[in-house]
Amino acid sequence: MAEQVKLLGSWLSPFSRRVELALKLKGVAYDYIDEDLANKSTLLLESNPVYKKIPVLIHKGNPIAESLIILEYIEDTWNGHPLLPMDLVERAQARFWAKFIDDKCLMAVWMSCWSEGEAQEKFMKEANENLTILEGALEGKKLFGGDAIGLVDIAANFLSSWAGVLQEIAGISLINEDKHPALWKWSQEFVSSDVVKECLPGREKLRARMLSRKEAILATKAPAY
Amino acid sequence: MAEQVKLLGSWLSPFSRRVELALKLKGVAYDYIDEDLANKSTLLLESNPVYKKIPVLIHKGNPIAESLIILEYIEDTWNGHPLLPMDLVERAQARFWAKFIDDKCLMAVWMSCWSEGEAQEKFMKEANENLTILEGALEGKKLFGGDAIGLVDIAANFLSSWAGVLQEIAGISLINEDKHPALWKWSQEFVSSDVVKECLPGREKLRARMLSRKEAILATKAPAY
Repeated sequence: MAEQVKLLGSWLSPFSRRVELALKLKGVAYDYIDEDLANKSTLLLESNPVYKKIPVLIHKGNPIAESLIILEYIEDTWNGHPLLPMDLVERAQARFWAKFIDDKCLMAVWMSCWSEGEAQEKFMKEANENLTILEGALEGKKLFGGDAIGLVDIAANFLSSWAGVLQEIAGISLINEDKHPALWKWSQEFVSSDVVKECLPGREKLRARMLSRKEAILATKAPAY
Repeated sequence: MAEQVKLLGSWLSPFSRRVELALKLKGVAYDYIDEDLANKSTLLLESNPVYKKIPVLIHKGNPIAESLIILEYIEDTWNGHPLLPMDLVERAQARFWAKFIDDKCLMAVWMSCWSEGEAQEKFMKEANENLTILEGALEGKKLFGGDAIGLVDIAANFLSSWAGVLQEIAGISLINEDKHPALWKWSQEFVSSDVVKECLPGREKLRARMLSRKEAILATKAPAY
């Protein structure tokens, strides 16, 4: 019995994968329920009535929503691999960068891959600028967490395999050795970890899903967002 | 000497006032520097190079930015009045609602007060829906923090005096006894606290500043955001 820990997630979602990675790093056993996002379970709707979104961690019957908040809960609840630094200033800095990734990087990169023309140029400019800023947090370090995976590395998971697949499909290159060498190196380092590998969606499966999304968008001419 | 605690803020900003309130609740002495936002100091630009925004807390020379992250830092650093509950599930819930206020309430209320016509209707609808959801977090409680001011109360400060003044200037009523009775009652309770009173901008001063902002907008016909 998995210490009454349940994760409602989706194999596709970097937010859900963040929680899986944190639980695995902590060595917490959990039951995983992969939600059909087109037909969400009653448990999900009842557990996150405000957003009705994955991921939701349910611990001893208590649901916790919002991936970064779940990561803080995991850090507060279980010992083992630390997600946040002990030093309080570094702790605040880690929270700052995790929030920066959510607020300034993810949507800009995502939209760079799903837009066209002028809009795409605008998103790519924004993504490039913010990724450059983010690289500052890696200065002199192998990972954002130093030598071990921490909160910021987990928050940045989308910038590894997801961003790679999406850029390929969109025919653009945002994160590469020339433009963002520190982030590119980080990405290689991050995905080389065995525990991270277990928490990535699988390149071919992700690629197939994203390609079918693209085809659906082209067929309907609906906006991609 | 204020234990080397410096706050770069603005009397006008609810985000800056959040930090002041947390420091006062904790009984932490600090030096306050009111920034001229039209002519930011070198100290501010160097302390928050990513956003170049107030508030920034500088503790022993280390700058911390982003108001909710500063509140976590204050909670981690100083004993005394707790900002977060001890219970870890309640702790996560407090973080959830503070983030909900930032993501879903503040901009919707702000834009309801600065827009017109159809756009205003849209923002007011959004604000109303989200304030109703937020009221759920007050169920059976005097304050979001229960009997004492906590993180969510501090995060919600804008919904007290600022929202009151802005609604009056805009000629709308979002938070009142009929529409959002729990939030309205919370607002009365919150502003009745002596320590909160010290951390509010002063109704007439705020009103004058907001009115001159409105006049400037009307004169230039520039959008309000």
